[in-house]
Amino acid sequence: MFHLRTCAAKLRPLTASQTVKTFSQNRPAAARTFQQIRCYSAPVAAEPFLSGTSSNYVEEMYCAWLENPKSVHKSWDIFFRNTNAGAPPGTAYQSPLPLSRGSLAAVAHAQSLVEAQPNVDKLVEDHLAVQSLIRAYQVRGHHIAKLDPLGISCVNFDDAPVTVSSNVGFYGLDESDLDKVFHLPTTTFIGGQESALPLREIIRRLEVMSILLHGDAAFAGQGIVYETFHLSDLPSYTTHGTVHVVVNNQIGFTTDPRMARSSPYPTDVARVVNAPIFHVNSDDPEAVMYVCKVAAEWRSTFHKDVVVDLVCYRRNGHNEMDEPMFTQPLMYKQIRKQKPVLQKYAELLVSQGVVNQPEYEEEISKYDKICEEAFARSKDEKILHIKHWLDSPWPGFFTLDGQPRSMSCPSTGLTEDILTHIGNVASSVPVENFTIHGGLSRILKTRGEMVKNRTVDWALAEYMAFGSLLKEGIHIRLSGQDVERGTFSHRHHVLHDQNVDKRTCIPMNHLWPNQAPYTVCNSSLSEYGVLGFELGFAMASPNALVLWEAQFGDFHNTAQCIIDQFICPGQAKWVRQNGIVLLLPHGMEGMGPEHSSARPERFLQMCNDDPDVLPDLKEANFDINQLYDCNWVVVNCSTPGNFFHVLRRQILLPFRKPLIIFTPKSLLRHPEARSSFDEMLPGTHFQRVIPEDGPAAQNPENVKRLLFCTGKVYYDLTRERKARDMVGQVAITRIEQLSPFPFDLLLKEVQKYPNAELAWCQEEHKNQGYYDYVKPRLRTTISRAKPVWYAGRDPAAAPATGNKKTHLTELQRLLDTAFDLDVFKNFS
Amino acid sequence: MFHLRTCAAKLRPLTASQTVKTFSQNRPAAARTFQQIRCYSAPVAAEPFLSGTSSNYVEEMYCAWLENPKSVHKSWDIFFRNTNAGAPPGTAYQSPLPLSRGSLAAVAHAQSLVEAQPNVDKLVEDHLAVQSLIRAYQVRGHHIAKLDPLGISCVNFDDAPVTVSSNVGFYGLDESDLDKVFHLPTTTFIGGQESALPLREIIRRLEVMSILLHGDAAFAGQGIVYETFHLSDLPSYTTHGTVHVVVNNQIGFTTDPRMARSSPYPTDVARVVNAPIFHVNSDDPEAVMYVCKVAAEWRSTFHKDVVVDLVCYRRNGHNEMDEPMFTQPLMYKQIRKQKPVLQKYAELLVSQGVVNQPEYEEEISKYDKICEEAFARSKDEKILHIKHWLDSPWPGFFTLDGQPRSMSCPSTGLTEDILTHIGNVASSVPVENFTIHGGLSRILKTRGEMVKNRTVDWALAEYMAFGSLLKEGIHIRLSGQDVERGTFSHRHHVLHDQNVDKRTCIPMNHLWPNQAPYTVCNSSLSEYGVLGFELGFAMASPNALVLWEAQFGDFHNTAQCIIDQFICPGQAKWVRQNGIVLLLPHGMEGMGPEHSSARPERFLQMCNDDPDVLPDLKEANFDINQLYDCNWVVVNCSTPGNFFHVLRRQILLPFRKPLIIFTPKSLLRHPEARSSFDEMLPGTHFQRVIPEDGPAAQNPENVKRLLFCTGKVYYDLTRERKARDMVGQVAITRIEQLSPFPFDLLLKEVQKYPNAELAWCQEEHKNQGYYDYVKPRLRTTISRAKPVWYAGRDPAAAPATGNKKTHLTELQRLLDTAFDLDVFKNFS
Repeated sequence: MFHLRTCAAKLRPLTASQTVKTFSQNRPAAARTFQQIRCYSAPVAAEPFLSGTSSNYVEEMYCAWLENPKSVHKSWDIFFRNTNAGAPPGTAYQSPLPLSRGSLAAVAHAQSLVEAQPNVDKLVEDHLAVQSLIRAYQVRGHHIAKLDPLGISCVNFDDAPVTVSSNVGFYGLDESDLDKVFHLPTTTFIGGQESALPLREIIRRLEVMSILLHGDAAFAGQGIVYETFHLSDLPSYTTHGTVHVVVNNQIGFTTDPRMARSSPYPTDVARVVNAPIFHVNSDDPEAVMYVCKVAAEWRSTFHKDVVVDLVCYRRNGHNEMDEPMFTQPLMYKQIRKQKPVLQKYAELLVSQGVVNQPEYEEEISKYDKICEEAFARSKDEKILHIKHWLDSPWPGFFTLDGQPRSMSCPSTGLTEDILTHIGNVASSVPVENFTIHGGLSRILKTRGEMVKNRTVDWALAEYMAFGSLLKEGIHIRLSGQDVERGTFSHRHHVLHDQNVDKRTCIPMNHLWPNQAPYTVCNSSLSEYGVLGFELGFAMASPNALVLWEAQFGDFHNTAQCIIDQFICPGQAKWVRQNGIVLLLPHGMEGMGPEHSSARPERFLQMCNDDPDVLPDLKEANFDINQLYDCNWVVVNCSTPGNFFHVLRRQILLPFRKPLIIFTPKSLLRHPEARSSFDEMLPGTHFQRVIPEDGPAAQNPENVKRLLFCTGKVYYDLTRERKARDMVGQVAITRIEQLSPFPFDLLLKEVQKYPNAELAWCQEEHKNQGYYDYVKPRLRTTISRAKPVWYAGRDPAAAPATGNKKTHLTELQRLLDTAFDLDVFKNFS
Repeated sequence: MFHLRTCAAKLRPLTASQTVKTFSQNRPAAARTFQQIRCYSAPVAAEPFLSGTSSNYVEEMYCAWLENPKSVHKSWDIFFRNTNAGAPPGTAYQSPLPLSRGSLAAVAHAQSLVEAQPNVDKLVEDHLAVQSLIRAYQVRGHHIAKLDPLGISCVNFDDAPVTVSSNVGFYGLDESDLDKVFHLPTTTFIGGQESALPLREIIRRLEVMSILLHGDAAFAGQGIVYETFHLSDLPSYTTHGTVHVVVNNQIGFTTDPRMARSSPYPTDVARVVNAPIFHVNSDDPEAVMYVCKVAAEWRSTFHKDVVVDLVCYRRNGHNEMDEPMFTQPLMYKQIRKQKPVLQKYAELLVSQGVVNQPEYEEEISKYDKICEEAFARSKDEKILHIKHWLDSPWPGFFTLDGQPRSMSCPSTGLTEDILTHIGNVASSVPVENFTIHGGLSRILKTRGEMVKNRTVDWALAEYMAFGSLLKEGIHIRLSGQDVERGTFSHRHHVLHDQNVDKRTCIPMNHLWPNQAPYTVCNSSLSEYGVLGFELGFAMASPNALVLWEAQFGDFHNTAQCIIDQFICPGQAKWVRQNGIVLLLPHGMEGMGPEHSSARPERFLQMCNDDPDVLPDLKEANFDINQLYDCNWVVVNCSTPGNFFHVLRRQILLPFRKPLIIFTPKSLLRHPEARSSFDEMLPGTHFQRVIPEDGPAAQNPENVKRLLFCTGKVYYDLTRERKARDMVGQVAITRIEQLSPFPFDLLLKEVQKYPNAELAWCQEEHKNQGYYDYVKPRLRTTISRAKPVWYAGRDPAAAPATGNKKTHLTELQRLLDTAFDLDVFKNFS
């Protein structure tokens, strides 16, 4: 089915620049619009060769090599040395030769690759190529689904299948090699009994597929399975067919199916997307094999989901404590009578003369031996190095000790030229004969004027961050409800031709000749399913910037389980870093309790730092060390420029942590919420704290009150301070990075204003927002020398009032408190 | 279809005692098992006549009456006076006569009902009866679905349809009245053009049905719609058929269906349960009417869900800010050309000669007038009294001012006789010829021994609370995954005959001759859908105790949205109280991060009290006032007796608040976690704080450290204290009710130990559990006079380690801190 070149092209460890070049060579100029970009670009990420989570073998090798480089094959040694020496993605990998068949000469050859590319004879070269191909399939093969825009996605976009130029010379193989027979490396099991196969057959056997294993009660239970089925045919979310295997033991813990679902089969959820469902009696292994083969073939042919319902039973209880006879007496009486499937099948085979009893028993004891040995091995010391081998699929990130390659972050600034160029593309329509809406023309015109004035608003700052990372080969994926236009109609990353139906253009993909691709995709109306999908995407793509945006930050709680169980504790539980970014629109703007709060208090509560312990502020790279130690980063930027920096920092950091950003709503259009290019030039950084820089900072000893705040309320505070003519008496310092807490910078701020009272001001209710997180940490910063007062709304059960007038009254009251210099007198 | 008596029996405002009596009279003694109880009991709650949320008219009357009792009809005045005077459920309602047709004599008669039951003539009496019947249907009619165990629920239980004894003389009507014609009160619209109808026709028209309105993108989105469909045929969750109407505007905000779902129709989710789905073009009103009638008839005939997909369009944007042309230009070009449906249909009718143009225009202006007038009315002062009319469906709960009838709570203790009786039933099988499992016999025997020893464990304490409330006419409903047996196999509320398939027995329903019914139901494997269902159940049933138990407390976060959006802020947002109880198994027992924590910190963070403000401790009924002001109650009981009290208090309180209980796991079987009957006798109460009562309390001045804690860790602490022989030096005080915070009792504790350091000890990680909530409140209690130290685990990203050894090391470390009297010396 697959043309060799197409296949191999997809697997070739392209750099992003190569990718785009190749595609643009073959793309008719007039058609540089949404359709084609969409089909080509999303999946062609610049992830390194070894990304993915399935490379257990490599991990084992790496683990062994970390303990003793001589314990692994030379070729692996070379590979790991290259990787750890910082070889760029795609170049570190020099195919290891088959361990058993490789001649010493070949090993010597492999070793010599480290120094220079020597002449090698065709045979060895081709074997190496085949080995590379196999490894590439095994490790990156799951990307095919994303690379290959076959099936519904292209049907949807009304586009022709992808064809790739035939002059791409990866792996040095061509069609004439297809029927040559190649020795298989011992690192693969695709040969079965064979030690050599024709290349055509090797490729056939390497096709990957996605398999999900489910329990019956869960498959019919909470809606995430349903939500995932609805992702199955969406262009930017499809896996092009998953085989769902339901282990249907006909009971959910102690609950009968008739009490657990309203459909006859647990698998009926799959009917929503018309997936075929095979029910099979699991006591019949041959029937199970047959059904699984049909399912796999169906998936492979139609690239759609398919379900296998293994109807079986649970021989014992749900867990060690469970006595199933208490609640399912008749079922368990029956189960006790039931011969185990292995025994049943063995008896059948023996009766048919396929095997005899001693052969069967020998197989059993062989298998038992494997288990016993594995059990014994599981107790050895290896477990102590779990961190090493779990982190290995991210080469380039870690030193031999499993530590980050550096503990510093380069400047996240950009040259004026780059900023101007991105700004110009962001304010234009980079394809011809494309008519946009008049209102959008005005928006783009305004953007163009900002670029001329060397300023950015929020949307343009985001454009700058994304556009510049794309230039650096970073794939960017932004997913969520209505993200293409933006909930607040500020982004407009997908332009729609007003005259041609479904014709679109993504200017972000027209920035640079050799850029990485940009994927922006409106998701289904699910947070739980979609955020889970993005987390997985980020897990497999450490060099991509993967962002999920909530329609309103409030809505994240329908994905609370993904946040609680996976994002927050991912590294603590599984030694897995993850660089996912959550963009959560947040702000008290009188929009009522469902459209105001992303619940920052909840994210801050889940931070793993100690409120009562002052860290060593003199430590080198204090800020980066803090980031390395935290479980996630929580920021609330008050300027577009700082938002730009934190997005870029997320990728330029030498490690990955989830990043939670409370993003603005009204600030998107606030005339003061602009940043100058000057704040984004080379040498500039993300500011964890933005100190007061007005008159108060000039004569700090005159300052009576130092107000700390974060986010949008800053603009309310400065307006009020100006109105009250208190610019010399009250200093306002913004905490942009809430967690890890910037103890070092805040200590400086406090010390600068020796005569000032300290107060925290927030627009959120007292039990919400940042107060409970910030107050004890500020007190720790100053060794509890002064009180930290509170100016903000009272505690409340709901995140916001539904009454606009009440909202404004509350706001005025908190501003009154913030600027009444006598208000705390009676308490001190 | 409905037999009059059956119908009316269901609508009769029975007290619980009557209900059970009636049923038991007709129940063959030998069959007093699960099946029949299940079919009869669940829905026959003792809710008052006016419960439910659909009685808008009554609310309007009540609101008007509250402002001026003379502004409403006399009969309403009488009714509300009776209600507010505390008339018991079902007796307050004296049918108001038709306003327009009622003679003065009839009004006088109605008025006289307040004083005594006079002789009245048959005509008036029958009219009153019909009026009652109509109101009962309108207000309580939705209970039919739950009352009538037709369809799948009885099929499942293999039981015959319910028949009710014919000697029940409710309403004074019998079959001979069916064809008599009755005048209709003006308070109903069921007459249409008719002002009088035969009783048979009145009853036919009064059948209720459940209708849900959905948007297309949401219907196919996050899984709660899917989960709800799976509830539709479950015995204790069915509504016996809901009509789902999907307003399908073919777009989700800015997102096309092809990007939002993988099924052709948004309604395909209903295929899971084989619900019929009608797609209809909404521009054809007659087709819509036809389809809706077919749907209603289908539901009425088969008592199953049915879906109407109204295929329509959205004329304007998603909201005021939305310009749909940006993203859906061709769709909106088409929409602009589209004549509005009203105009289209009017033109059709005019062309058919059904109406003429002036008639049409007159209808339009009539309707406009209604809208204009309603708009004008919406601006008047009435809105200020929203609290009054929203609370009205809970008669008996509020005074004229909308305040609770009292601000005190009676003793929640019980007499020895009652405790013993419940204990005996709980340790027996109250039906004959019923074989239980041997293991269960041992469990029941152990229970019996506890009863003899006048002690209870957790399961028995729960039994006592439930059983005694049932005696008092309180319907109890316990729902959740595997709740019948209990996740930890401790409850066993449903016994299973080991010899007869599906034969079960619920001893709780065999306690008293006139008891209220007990519903216990294993739910589907959904938290989101099921907790939402229970919340609604509790909303409509203020006099029922509705409990939802999580399988493990950890799992509540897949229902986070129900907790955040509805339970926590319900009263703040909608002036709606709700008495739902969440039972959340919680405790650090080395079970790993997914089976340890119910995240108490999250519930506490959402409490609406101020950490920095000490309330007036001298206020009368301080404890009840605190409960009245809070948004929910959070408790963690350390003894079964206290668990018993807090469950009973939940119903005996004069108002309703959600109750969050962290329930134990290992304590269920802990030999010290027992309570004596003495702690549950008349005069005993729920203890918000359990003070130290050992040697330390005898010589308080010798105490060096006062440890505060909550829940299970208490037993670890006392064991360790004993082992270290420090019973005189360290006092341990348990906070059982965390929120509202027991400032008053804790102040006494602190004052009792003048020489003691204060420390908070918890087994949870520092950023979790109770520390962040308790510490500032303890500091406020003592006016910040002393530090409050911390003994517990360090902050962490995950709720618990997955390593048992680490778990134990952490535990020992926190015990070491708790009992090392020098450990805080360097910090003070």
